[in-house]
Amino acid sequence: MTESIRGCWVAIATPVTADGSIDHAALARHGTWLLEQRCDGLVLFGTTGEGPSFSARDRLDTIAALLGAGIAPEQLALGAGFPCFKDSIALIRDALALGPRHMLILPPYFYRDAPAAGLEAAFAAILDGVNDARVRATLYHIPQVSGVAIPPETLARLRARYGTLVAGLKDSSADFAQFRAFRAAASDATIVVGNETDIARALANGGGGTICGMANIVPSLVRAMFDDPGAETAMAGAIALMRPPFLPSLKSVIAAMTGEPGWSRVRPPLISAPPGAGVAIMARLQDMVQPRT
Amino acid sequence: MTESIRGCWVAIATPVTADGSIDHAALARHGTWLLEQRCDGLVLFGTTGEGPSFSARDRLDTIAALLGAGIAPEQLALGAGFPCFKDSIALIRDALALGPRHMLILPPYFYRDAPAAGLEAAFAAILDGVNDARVRATLYHIPQVSGVAIPPETLARLRARYGTLVAGLKDSSADFAQFRAFRAAASDATIVVGNETDIARALANGGGGTICGMANIVPSLVRAMFDDPGAETAMAGAIALMRPPFLPSLKSVIAAMTGEPGWSRVRPPLISAPPGAGVAIMARLQDMVQPRT
Repeated sequence: MTESIRGCWVAIATPVTADGSIDHAALARHGTWLLEQRCDGLVLFGTTGEGPSFSARDRLDTIAALLGAGIAPEQLALGAGFPCFKDSIALIRDALALGPRHMLILPPYFYRDAPAAGLEAAFAAILDGVNDARVRATLYHIPQVSGVAIPPETLARLRARYGTLVAGLKDSSADFAQFRAFRAAASDATIVVGNETDIARALANGGGGTICGMANIVPSLVRAMFDDPGAETAMAGAIALMRPPFLPSLKSVIAAMTGEPGWSRVRPPLISAPPGAGVAIMARLQDMVQPRT
Repeated sequence: MTESIRGCWVAIATPVTADGSIDHAALARHGTWLLEQRCDGLVLFGTTGEGPSFSARDRLDTIAALLGAGIAPEQLALGAGFPCFKDSIALIRDALALGPRHMLILPPYFYRDAPAAGLEAAFAAILDGVNDARVRATLYHIPQVSGVAIPPETLARLRARYGTLVAGLKDSSADFAQFRAFRAAASDATIVVGNETDIARALANGGGGTICGMANIVPSLVRAMFDDPGAETAMAGAIALMRPPFLPSLKSVIAAMTGEPGWSRVRPPLISAPPGAGVAIMARLQDMVQPRT
């Protein structure tokens, strides 16, 4: 198994049925296709996966369904950070029993003025409570959404304290100075970026790769960011087509790509993109990047 | 039973033992004392109660313990808002079965740019999922902590849609213009304030009372805000003694008042106040307000 999340991982979106439950079959089809497109793995229930909108039970059932559909445990990672650290412990223990070891862990995100020592204590409480040498934690820095930044020193202290159990950090700040600060603070941890246009720059500066949302719709373009210097301009163009808010637009494009309109649904508090949005974006994406084969 | 939270309710703090579990006996002693001080009820697991740091199981076990200690279900309300609406549904259904009907519900607080229609859909999903005429929801507006504001029109639309099931709203913004906006938008809903110095002003403008943290330590002073015009100055002075962050200071004062040092503990990501903080604040509080008898 890999000791950290490296390469091209998809922050996979989560399809829901009309009654709000997860469409496991649609998710397995999409995940299988993404892996066929040379993505290295799937992160379930990140921000793009609407993770905080799904219960622990939802998440565990989904892992089981994907494993049942033939996806390997090494190809799955799980968003597992709750505001209550005991909820994170329970979910991670149950997830480890199913097979996946990589956990993407948000800091507790209600008390947004929590001090650095408190954030460290919260992550430590999770790792101590899980108490299992199999776990590989990737801390999740996305302050513009969660409201809570992870200080680079907190990553460094946790890595020193827990070794490879703290495998790395996902930096979704889209601020490359922040990426450099994480690298400088913890050079042996694997830092991956969420911002697709930073992938080549991050790799050149010791980064481990990406966990990103755009891989849901343009996986080959995300792959190209690993070795084609021309890809960054195309990627920026593709991102610019995604009308904010990002996630409803992204799901509407998946609906257009797959011909499965249910993909446009989101869980509250998000709201679906307007009808036709995905088809319009898809038409322009196909002009810019190679069409899905 | 009362149709909404009215009068003087305490946002009760949650004592934890050395292993991080809830000290039910200490909580029952404190709650019983507060009710003896003429508080009308106790809101468990609000912001002051570190609600987001506790699991659904923690919350249900605590309700059961307090009922077992002789506190009436009518005197209890429960913080019950999770980022995942299905978690809120499950908790509220279980809590209703125990007896309490008043639920203080945060908006989903991860996606901080969720549109008003999405917040309405989230609250509606909870009420539809609970599907029980006994529930009385008090929406919880505390944007400076949760990151998510509840628009007055959202309260008005939900009140029109669900009637008395949407009993009211707790406005913890400490912005009295916001209180007036909620009153204007939904005049038949019960608006209570979190900011202790606004209590008299809110009552004079049609408010229902308060749910507040300071009632943990100066309940008679909070009571005085209902009928003594001189109380506001004393209250402002008492609040000024609480060194930020508020909650660790508050818990350290409860520790000093009760002689139970365990009250100083907090769950991560918060950090306890420095040793001696509570004793020092308590000494000054006793100079300013009547000492606990």
